[in-house]
Amino acid sequence: MASAASASEGKEPRTERGRKTLRAILDAAALEFGEKGFHEGSVSGITRRAGVALGSFYTYFDSKDAVFRALVRDMSAQVRDHVAPAIRAAPDGIAAERAGLERFIGFVRAHKEIYRIIDEAEFVDPESFHAHYATTAERIHARLRAAADRGEVRGDVGEAHAWAIMGMNVFLGLRFGVWEEDRLPEAIAGEIAEFLRHGLAPRG
Amino acid sequence: MASAASASEGKEPRTERGRKTLRAILDAAALEFGEKGFHEGSVSGITRRAGVALGSFYTYFDSKDAVFRALVRDMSAQVRDHVAPAIRAAPDGIAAERAGLERFIGFVRAHKEIYRIIDEAEFVDPESFHAHYATTAERIHARLRAAADRGEVRGDVGEAHAWAIMGMNVFLGLRFGVWEEDRLPEAIAGEIAEFLRHGLAPRG
Repeated sequence: MASAASASEGKEPRTERGRKTLRAILDAAALEFGEKGFHEGSVSGITRRAGVALGSFYTYFDSKDAVFRALVRDMSAQVRDHVAPAIRAAPDGIAAERAGLERFIGFVRAHKEIYRIIDEAEFVDPESFHAHYATTAERIHARLRAAADRGEVRGDVGEAHAWAIMGMNVFLGLRFGVWEEDRLPEAIAGEIAEFLRHGLAPRG
Repeated sequence: MASAASASEGKEPRTERGRKTLRAILDAAALEFGEKGFHEGSVSGITRRAGVALGSFYTYFDSKDAVFRALVRDMSAQVRDHVAPAIRAAPDGIAAERAGLERFIGFVRAHKEIYRIIDEAEFVDPESFHAHYATTAERIHARLRAAADRGEVRGDVGEAHAWAIMGMNVFLGLRFGVWEEDRLPEAIAGEIAEFLRHGLAPRG
């Protein structure tokens, strides 16, 4: 179940065709901002890439700022939706983190622009930047707590462990997803999962 | 032994007084860019904060771009120099990572602007951004390999572990250094060191 992409307030599309145009604009915005950055990127560059008229853009978004903010939330939701099914299907807490990391590196390879966009949000849209990492850490924390309740990881697993895992994933994605694809995502995820399994093992 | 701060090429200070002025300019640049970001920050804002004349600025730097590039390298060197003695004094590899993380969070609390500056380098000065993380990961990797040779951590410890540790440190610094100072750096470092000790323990 993919998250619905969101337009500026009061500009949500009401038809399937409208939703497709909105999706095309957001995908084009990811390429435009990913390649040129926020300051050099332009609304006309986005509409050209999307193959839509300038008027269509303003049907859904108020400004360049507005589409950037929508894009940050959209990429955050896309990566969450991409990893979620693999995490849910995993047999235990460590296997869930393993599956999540493997899927994440795969997503990054197909959407290398995600780093530039989320990172630039620190400057262009600090609220979305903060929300992206705060909610990601909360999700990991909740998964770890559930795994602790099932006795799969140590009982005192906490917020610092969740932030540590998020940080690992972000930098492993940067190194093995964006910078160089010299190793298989499953190999990286397997190595890190073993590290987590021992590092977070229940204490006797 | 602090790293010498560097001016634009051919503009290195030759006197102690010159080196002090250069240091004042770099410290002022950290505040100016940390607060306003690269685009909104200005050379006149830097000279005002440093209490030096505009001419002094151009004695050492060619441009706003040049001082930003020098600042990224300078912050990278400062953090390295700040953590290095504690790492060198540690009795083993895991204790070294623990000491490094504790000192890093402390450094971040005193220099919260480091995140904005290093992160903005991704857009303003990608080469320094790349160099900062590549060399940091290499240093961690070398420490882990040395610890493996001494039998303190598993023999197959590698680059992915080094990137994982760097990522943890960056995000723990963001959460517990920049965002909120609600826990002691030594408590975070102790918790993470235990995680590393078990996660990287030599396999029998």
